[in-house]
Amino acid sequence: MSEQLLVELQATLEREIPISRSMGIRVYSHAACGLKMAAPLDPNRNHQQTAFAGTLNALCTLAGWGTVFLLAREQNRPGNIVIRRSAIKYLRPVTSELMIAHCAAPGSEQREHFIEMLNEKGSSKIDLDVEIIDRGQVAVSFRGSYVVLGENHGMPRGEF
Amino acid sequence: MSEQLLVELQATLEREIPISRSMGIRVYSHAACGLKMAAPLDPNRNHQQTAFAGTLNALCTLAGWGTVFLLAREQNRPGNIVIRRSAIKYLRPVTSELMIAHCAAPGSEQREHFIEMLNEKGSSKIDLDVEIIDRGQVAVSFRGSYVVLGENHGMPRGEF
Repeated sequence: MSEQLLVELQATLEREIPISRSMGIRVYSHAACGLKMAAPLDPNRNHQQTAFAGTLNALCTLAGWGTVFLLAREQNRPGNIVIRRSAIKYLRPVTSELMIAHCAAPGSEQREHFIEMLNEKGSSKIDLDVEIIDRGQVAVSFRGSYVVLGENHGMPRGEF
Repeated sequence: MSEQLLVELQATLEREIPISRSMGIRVYSHAACGLKMAAPLDPNRNHQQTAFAGTLNALCTLAGWGTVFLLAREQNRPGNIVIRRSAIKYLRPVTSELMIAHCAAPGSEQREHFIEMLNEKGSSKIDLDVEIIDRGQVAVSFRGSYVVLGENHGMPRGEF
Protein backbone atom coordinates (compact mmCIF):
# COMPACT_ATOMS: atom_id res chain seq x y z
CA MET A 1 0.00 0.00 0.00
CA SER A 2 1.55 3.29 -1.05
CA GLU A 3 1.41 6.31 1.22
CA GLN A 4 0.23 8.22 -1.85
CA LEU A 5 -3.01 6.20 -1.97
CA LEU A 6 -3.81 7.06 1.66
CA VAL A 7 -3.21 10.74 0.93
CA GLU A 8 -5.54 10.42 -2.06
CA LEU A 9 -8.20 8.74 0.09
CA GLN A 10 -8.01 11.54 2.67
CA ALA A 11 -8.19 14.22 -0.02
CA THR A 12 -11.16 12.47 -1.63
CA LEU A 13 -13.07 12.44 1.65
CA GLU A 14 -12.36 16.09 2.36
CA ARG A 15 -13.26 17.20 -1.13
CA GLU A 16 -16.29 15.05 -1.81
CA ILE A 17 -18.00 14.48 1.54
CA PRO A 18 -18.08 17.92 3.17
CA ILE A 19 -20.05 16.72 6.21
CA SER A 20 -17.18 14.32 7.05
CA ARG A 21 -15.07 17.44 7.70
CA SER A 22 -17.65 18.68 10.23
CA MET A 23 -17.40 15.29 11.95
CA GLY A 24 -13.59 15.45 11.81
CA ILE A 25 -13.38 12.05 10.11
CA ARG A 26 -9.89 11.23 8.80
CA VAL A 27 -7.69 8.36 7.70
CA TYR A 28 -5.86 7.10 10.78
CA SER A 29 -3.68 4.20 9.63
CA HIS A 30 -3.42 1.32 7.22
CA ALA A 31 -1.70 -2.00 7.85
CA ALA A 32 -1.98 -5.65 6.84
CA CYS A 33 -4.85 -6.08 9.31
CA GLY A 34 -6.90 -3.31 7.75
CA LEU A 35 -7.76 0.36 7.49
CA LYS A 36 -8.52 2.57 10.49
CA MET A 37 -10.42 5.83 10.33
CA ALA A 38 -10.82 8.21 13.25
CA ALA A 39 -12.97 11.08 14.47
CA PRO A 40 -12.76 13.23 17.61
CA LEU A 41 -15.50 12.80 20.19
CA ASP A 42 -15.92 16.49 20.87
CA PRO A 43 -17.99 17.67 17.86
CA ASN A 44 -19.85 14.35 17.84
CA ARG A 45 -21.17 14.21 21.39
CA ASN A 46 -24.73 13.34 22.28
CA HIS A 47 -26.89 14.19 25.28
CA GLN A 48 -24.94 11.72 27.42
CA GLN A 49 -21.53 13.10 26.43
CA THR A 50 -20.82 9.89 24.53
CA ALA A 51 -20.58 9.50 20.76
CA PHE A 52 -23.68 10.14 18.64
CA ALA A 53 -24.83 6.93 16.92
CA GLY A 54 -25.10 8.74 13.59
CA THR A 55 -21.43 9.64 13.66
CA LEU A 56 -20.41 6.11 14.71
CA ASN A 57 -22.34 4.75 11.74
CA ALA A 58 -20.81 7.32 9.36
CA LEU A 59 -17.31 6.49 10.63
CA CYS A 60 -17.85 2.74 10.09
CA THR A 61 -19.46 3.36 6.68
CA LEU A 62 -16.44 5.37 5.57
CA ALA A 63 -13.89 2.89 6.99
CA GLY A 64 -15.50 0.25 4.78
CA TRP A 65 -15.79 2.63 1.84
CA GLY A 66 -12.11 3.57 2.20
CA THR A 67 -11.13 -0.10 2.22
CA VAL A 68 -12.93 -0.65 -1.10
CA PHE A 69 -11.40 2.58 -2.45
CA LEU A 70 -7.90 1.27 -1.71
CA LEU A 71 -8.62 -2.20 -3.11
CA ALA A 72 -10.02 -0.73 -6.35
CA ARG A 73 -7.25 1.87 -6.72
CA GLU A 74 -4.60 -0.83 -6.36
CA GLN A 75 -6.15 -2.45 -9.45
CA ASN A 76 -6.30 0.90 -11.25
CA ARG A 77 -10.07 0.55 -11.36
CA PRO A 78 -11.47 3.52 -9.48
CA GLY A 79 -15.16 3.23 -10.50
CA ASN A 80 -18.05 4.39 -8.34
CA ILE A 81 -18.11 2.84 -4.88
CA VAL A 82 -21.45 2.74 -3.10
CA ILE A 83 -22.84 1.06 -0.02
CA ARG A 84 -25.94 -1.07 -0.58
CA ARG A 85 -26.84 -1.97 2.98
CA SER A 86 -25.41 -2.21 6.47
CA ALA A 87 -26.23 -3.49 9.92
CA ILE A 88 -24.81 -2.07 13.12
CA LYS A 89 -24.88 -2.99 16.80
CA TYR A 90 -24.21 -0.32 19.42
CA LEU A 91 -22.92 -2.54 22.21
CA ARG A 92 -21.46 0.04 24.58
CA PRO A 93 -21.30 3.84 24.73
CA VAL A 94 -18.13 5.29 23.16
CA THR A 95 -16.40 7.71 25.51
CA SER A 96 -12.80 7.95 24.25
CA GLU A 97 -11.71 11.36 22.99
CA LEU A 98 -10.69 9.75 19.69
CA MET A 99 -13.03 7.21 18.11
CA ILE A 100 -11.29 4.72 15.85
CA ALA A 101 -13.13 2.43 13.42
CA HIS A 102 -11.15 -0.56 12.19
CA CYS A 103 -12.24 -2.23 8.96
CA ALA A 104 -10.78 -5.73 8.96
CA ALA A 105 -8.80 -6.48 5.80
CA PRO A 106 -10.73 -9.01 3.71
CA GLY A 107 -9.32 -12.54 3.74
CA SER A 108 -7.21 -13.61 0.76
CA GLU A 109 -10.02 -15.63 -0.82
CA GLN A 110 -12.55 -12.82 -0.46
CA ARG A 111 -10.02 -10.33 -1.80
CA GLU A 112 -9.19 -12.49 -4.81
CA HIS A 113 -12.86 -12.98 -5.60
CA PHE A 114 -13.44 -9.21 -5.43
CA ILE A 115 -10.47 -8.44 -7.69
CA GLU A 116 -11.29 -11.19 -10.17
CA MET A 117 -14.85 -9.94 -10.59
CA LEU A 118 -13.64 -6.34 -10.84
CA ASN A 119 -11.14 -7.16 -13.57
CA GLU A 120 -13.51 -9.43 -15.50
CA LYS A 121 -16.71 -7.38 -15.29
CA GLY A 122 -15.55 -3.89 -14.36
CA SER A 123 -17.87 -4.13 -11.34
CA SER A 124 -17.60 -6.03 -8.08
CA LYS A 125 -19.00 -6.34 -4.57
CA ILE A 126 -17.73 -7.14 -1.12
CA ASP A 127 -19.01 -7.42 2.46
CA LEU A 128 -16.80 -5.83 5.11
CA ASP A 129 -16.71 -5.93 8.91
CA VAL A 130 -15.87 -2.85 10.93
CA GLU A 131 -15.47 -2.50 14.69
CA ILE A 132 -14.97 0.38 17.06
CA ILE A 133 -13.00 -0.65 20.11
CA ASP A 134 -13.41 1.64 23.08
CA ARG A 135 -11.37 1.27 26.26
CA GLY A 136 -10.44 -2.28 25.35
CA GLN A 137 -13.90 -3.56 24.46
CA VAL A 138 -15.90 -3.82 21.27
CA ALA A 139 -18.33 -0.90 21.44
CA VAL A 140 -19.68 -0.99 17.89
CA SER A 141 -19.97 -3.86 15.44
CA PHE A 142 -20.82 -3.07 11.80
CA ARG A 143 -21.17 -5.02 8.57
CA GLY A 144 -21.55 -3.22 5.25
CA SER A 145 -22.11 -4.45 1.69
CA TYR A 146 -20.29 -2.37 -0.91
CA VAL A 147 -20.36 -2.31 -4.68
CA VAL A 148 -17.91 -0.91 -7.21
CA LEU A 149 -19.53 0.02 -10.48
CA GLY A 150 -17.64 0.66 -13.69
CA GLU A 151 -17.95 4.15 -15.12
CA ASN A 152 -20.37 3.08 -17.86
CA HIS A 153 -23.01 1.89 -15.38
CA GLY A 154 -24.65 5.32 -15.07
CA MET A 155 -26.25 6.36 -11.80
CA PRO A 156 -25.67 3.53 -9.33
CA ARG A 157 -28.20 2.14 -6.94
CA GLY A 158 -27.09 2.47 -3.35
CA GLU A 159 -25.24 5.32 -1.69
CA PHE A 160 -21.77 6.51 -0.80
CA MET B 1 -49.62 15.33 20.30
CA SER B 2 -48.97 18.86 21.54
CA GLU B 3 -47.05 21.35 19.43
CA GLN B 4 -45.04 22.04 22.57
CA LEU B 5 -43.61 18.50 22.52
CA LEU B 6 -42.39 18.95 18.95
CA VAL B 7 -40.73 22.22 19.92
CA GLU B 8 -39.09 20.42 22.84
CA LEU B 9 -37.86 17.65 20.54
CA GLN B 10 -36.35 20.17 18.13
CA ALA B 11 -34.68 22.08 20.98
CA THR B 12 -33.32 18.83 22.43
CA LEU B 13 -31.73 17.89 19.12
CA GLU B 14 -30.16 21.30 18.64
CA ARG B 15 -28.84 21.47 22.17
CA GLU B 16 -27.66 17.93 22.67
CA ILE B 17 -26.55 16.68 19.26
CA PRO B 18 -24.44 19.50 17.83
CA ILE B 19 -23.49 17.55 14.70
CA SER B 20 -27.19 17.34 13.77
CA ARG B 21 -27.07 21.12 13.34
CA SER B 22 -24.22 20.77 10.83
CA MET B 23 -26.35 18.27 8.93
CA GLY B 24 -29.35 20.62 9.14
CA ILE B 25 -31.54 17.89 10.64
CA ARG B 26 -34.87 19.19 11.95
CA VAL B 27 -38.35 18.08 12.95
CA TYR B 28 -40.53 18.31 9.82
CA SER B 29 -44.01 17.16 10.84
CA HIS B 30 -45.95 14.83 13.08
CA ALA B 31 -49.27 13.18 12.28
CA ALA B 32 -51.18 10.00 13.08
CA CYS B 33 -49.07 8.12 10.53
CA GLY B 34 -45.81 9.08 12.23
CA LEU B 35 -42.97 11.55 12.68
CA LYS B 36 -41.01 13.06 9.80
CA MET B 37 -37.57 14.59 10.12
CA ALA B 38 -35.81 16.46 7.33
CA ALA B 39 -32.36 17.59 6.24
CA PRO B 40 -31.22 19.64 3.24
CA LEU B 41 -29.19 17.85 0.59
CA ASP B 42 -26.68 20.63 0.12
CA PRO B 43 -24.38 20.20 3.15
CA ASN B 44 -24.81 16.42 2.94
CA ARG B 45 -23.75 15.74 -0.63
CA ASN B 46 -21.36 13.00 -1.62
CA HIS B 47 -19.04 12.61 -4.61
CA GLN B 48 -22.03 11.88 -6.85
CA GLN B 49 -23.99 14.94 -5.74
CA THR B 50 -26.49 12.65 -4.01
CA ALA B 51 -26.99 12.25 -0.26
CA PHE B 52 -24.14 10.84 1.84
CA ALA B 53 -25.10 7.45 3.33
CA GLY B 54 -23.89 8.57 6.78
CA THR B 55 -26.35 11.45 6.81
CA LEU B 56 -29.21 9.25 5.58
CA ASN B 57 -28.51 6.85 8.43
CA ALA B 58 -28.29 9.68 10.99
CA LEU B 59 -31.59 11.13 9.73
CA CYS B 60 -33.35 7.74 10.04
CA THR B 61 -31.76 7.10 13.45
CA LEU B 62 -33.06 10.44 14.73
CA ALA B 63 -36.53 9.99 13.22
CA GLY B 64 -36.80 6.78 15.24
CA TRP B 65 -35.24 8.38 18.31
CA GLY B 66 -37.66 11.29 18.07
CA THR B 67 -40.61 8.91 17.86
CA VAL B 68 -39.53 7.22 21.10
CA PHE B 69 -38.91 10.65 22.66
CA LEU B 70 -42.52 11.68 21.92
CA LEU B 71 -43.98 8.35 23.11
CA ALA B 72 -42.06 8.54 26.39
CA ARG B 73 -42.77 12.25 26.98
CA GLU B 74 -46.49 11.62 26.49
CA GLN B 75 -46.26 9.22 29.44
CA ASN B 76 -44.20 11.74 31.46
CA ARG B 77 -41.36 9.25 31.47
CA PRO B 78 -38.44 10.94 29.74
CA GLY B 79 -35.62 8.47 30.66
CA ASN B 80 -32.56 7.88 28.52
CA ILE B 81 -33.36 6.80 24.99
CA VAL B 82 -30.66 4.86 23.15
CA ILE B 83 -30.45 2.87 19.95
CA ARG B 84 -29.21 -0.70 20.31
CA ARG B 85 -28.93 -1.75 16.69
CA SER B 86 -30.16 -0.90 13.24
CA ALA B 87 -30.17 -2.21 9.69
CA ILE B 88 -30.45 -0.04 6.61
CA LYS B 89 -30.85 -0.60 2.88
CA TYR B 90 -29.79 2.09 0.43
CA LEU B 91 -32.08 1.22 -2.45
CA ARG B 92 -31.71 4.30 -4.64
CA PRO B 93 -29.64 7.49 -4.57
CA VAL B 94 -31.39 10.40 -2.86
CA THR B 95 -31.32 13.50 -5.03
CA SER B 96 -34.14 15.73 -3.70
CA GLU B 97 -33.05 19.04 -2.23
CA LEU B 98 -34.88 18.16 0.99
CA MET B 99 -34.50 14.65 2.39
CA ILE B 100 -37.42 13.50 4.51
CA ALA B 101 -37.29 10.44 6.78
CA HIS B 102 -40.66 9.09 7.87
CA CYS B 103 -40.82 6.91 10.98
CA ALA B 104 -44.05 4.93 10.79
CA ALA B 105 -46.15 5.29 13.94
CA PRO B 106 -46.10 2.00 15.84
CA GLY B 107 -49.31 -0.03 15.63
CA SER B 108 -51.69 0.14 18.57
CA GLU B 109 -50.62 -3.23 19.99
CA GLN B 110 -46.92 -2.39 19.75
CA ARG B 111 -47.54 1.02 21.28
CA GLU B 112 -49.54 -0.42 24.17
CA HIS B 113 -46.86 -3.01 24.88
CA PHE B 114 -44.19 -0.29 24.92
CA ILE B 115 -46.19 1.95 27.27
CA GLU B 116 -47.16 -0.91 29.57
CA MET B 117 -43.55 -2.01 30.00
CA LEU B 118 -42.45 1.62 30.49
CA ASN B 119 -45.01 2.24 33.20
CA GLU B 120 -44.43 -1.09 34.95
CA LYS B 121 -40.65 -1.28 34.81
CA GLY B 122 -39.54 2.28 34.09
CA SER B 123 -37.74 0.90 31.01
CA SER B 124 -39.00 -0.29 27.67
CA LYS B 125 -38.00 -1.13 24.12
CA ILE B 126 -39.41 -0.86 20.65
CA ASP B 127 -38.48 -1.61 17.04
CA LEU B 128 -39.29 1.12 14.53
CA ASP B 129 -39.35 1.32 10.73
CA VAL B 130 -38.19 4.41 8.90
CA GLU B 131 -38.24 5.15 5.18
CA ILE B 132 -36.92 7.91 3.00
CA ILE B 133 -39.09 8.40 -0.07
CA ASP B 134 -37.35 10.21 -2.91
CA ARG B 135 -39.17 11.29 -6.05
CA GLY B 136 -42.01 8.89 -5.32
CA GLN B 137 -39.95 5.78 -4.60
CA VAL B 138 -38.54 4.21 -1.46
CA ALA B 139 -34.85 5.17 -1.51
CA VAL B 140 -33.87 4.12 2.01
CA SER B 141 -35.38 1.47 4.27
CA PHE B 142 -34.29 1.40 7.94
CA ARG B 143 -35.20 -0.57 11.05
CA GLY B 144 -33.89 0.46 14.46
CA SER B 145 -34.23 -1.06 17.93
CA TYR B 146 -34.55 1.53 20.67
CA VAL B 147 -34.53 1.32 24.44
CA VAL B 148 -35.74 3.74 27.10
CA LEU B 149 -33.94 3.35 30.38
CA GLY B 150 -35.17 4.79 33.66
CA GLU B 151 -32.92 7.36 35.25
CA ASN B 152 -31.60 4.94 37.89
CA HIS B 153 -30.12 2.58 35.30
CA GLY B 154 -26.77 4.40 35.16
CA MET B 155 -24.82 4.47 31.90
CA PRO B 156 -26.91 2.67 29.31
CA ARG B 157 -25.63 0.19 26.80
CA GLY B 158 -26.25 1.34 23.25
CA GLU B 159 -26.05 4.82 21.81
CA PHE B 160 -28.15 7.83 21.02
